[in-house]
Amino acid sequence: MRVTTVGLDADDTLWHNETLFRLTQDRFAELLSPLAPQAALRARLAEIESRNLRLYGYGVKGFTLSMIETAMEMAEGADVTAAVREILAAGREMLTHPVEPLPGVAQALDALAGRYRLVLITKGDLLHQERKLAASGLGELFAAVEIVSEKDAEVYERVFARHGTGAAEAAMVGNSLRSDVIPALEAGAFAAHIPYAMTWAHEMADAPLAHPRFAELASIAELPGWLERCEG
Amino acid sequence: MRVTTVGLDADDTLWHNETLFRLTQDRFAELLSPLAPQAALRARLAEIESRNLRLYGYGVKGFTLSMIETAMEMAEGADVTAAVREILAAGREMLTHPVEPLPGVAQALDALAGRYRLVLITKGDLLHQERKLAASGLGELFAAVEIVSEKDAEVYERVFARHGTGAAEAAMVGNSLRSDVIPALEAGAFAAHIPYAMTWAHEMADAPLAHPRFAELASIAELPGWLERCEG
Repeated sequence: MRVTTVGLDADDTLWHNETLFRLTQDRFAELLSPLAPQAALRARLAEIESRNLRLYGYGVKGFTLSMIETAMEMAEGADVTAAVREILAAGREMLTHPVEPLPGVAQALDALAGRYRLVLITKGDLLHQERKLAASGLGELFAAVEIVSEKDAEVYERVFARHGTGAAEAAMVGNSLRSDVIPALEAGAFAAHIPYAMTWAHEMADAPLAHPRFAELASIAELPGWLERCEG
Repeated sequence: MRVTTVGLDADDTLWHNETLFRLTQDRFAELLSPLAPQAALRARLAEIESRNLRLYGYGVKGFTLSMIETAMEMAEGADVTAAVREILAAGREMLTHPVEPLPGVAQALDALAGRYRLVLITKGDLLHQERKLAASGLGELFAAVEIVSEKDAEVYERVFARHGTGAAEAAMVGNSLRSDVIPALEAGAFAAHIPYAMTWAHEMADAPLAHPRFAELASIAELPGWLERCEG
């Protein structure tokens, strides 16, 4: 079986992301702790964020709006001007946070770029994802970049048809079973799961352990070897 | 000269957009009128929006964040909880506003779709632009959709190479001289300007009246005839 194209997720696959969201959530909960218990604040934020996803889509801007909405709900007459300013600042900091590739990423991509067409496939805010890729220094290694509003089988079919030789000859790699692995397998591609230290509740799913085209890798360093075995 | 591909802008070319931003700005200025004169509120919002563009990019989510930031700046100790809630609601209404094609759009696109590859090329929030296209009922007429973070000559070159036969055999159509016309001409394409009733200050530019590949059209109904003349 030939593999011509490798799709790579970005956030928490190439660089840290969830860590930054968690830190911002901590800051949010602390900021509003005079208004409500931190656990209640976190739970309400998660609910509001999840409800807003279908409207705002993924990314920092929608998350910032959801933090503000949660704060307004908890305010009950308190002066929240300073808190809202802080939330806006926290959102801006997320958008300008330095981006550093995770350990082993640059080496693995270097090894793969000569052999496969590498395609970055990511959700999130358009401009922010483009900027993170530029800041990562990895941009030159990718033949194409696709920032999508949702990752489903149809998207993988379309992207691998456009930038490669179809999903059957492609592999998708990422930290989310729900977004990177399951729909890519559904589209007919190979898929490797490389877990990140923590997973956003929204991205949780069961590993399709029995699928012949699935692999669980401990780190991105194992990716070149696995792709060779896919082809063998 | 052959034209194989026609790029179309979306907001204020296929459906209303600026009108909705203006109405929301009016609502914002009225809402905060106890805090500052409406003219000052509008001016400050425009400044903050413009400054935030390079961070947030285009679209309703960034605009909503800029409205909230402006409100916080003007608050000076007043209770702004209700105002922030209203702004969040106004942003959500923009995101769910019904989308109706402008007069003549459906007919013009119908006439063109059999003859040219139609490509939607738009800035803004990824999910929102996709949803507007779906709601417009025009989605089926487009061979491809490109939602981009900025419209410059390089983007037009890339998009017309990917979805057509290169910029030299493509035409771009839109209401913004700055985003739709000038960079498309720079890329070597034809470009037609179809003015909308109002233009966002950020999108203003001088018409390249002397350019041999430029046309100013009074409405989209003139588009099929102009494209024929380009080819003739």
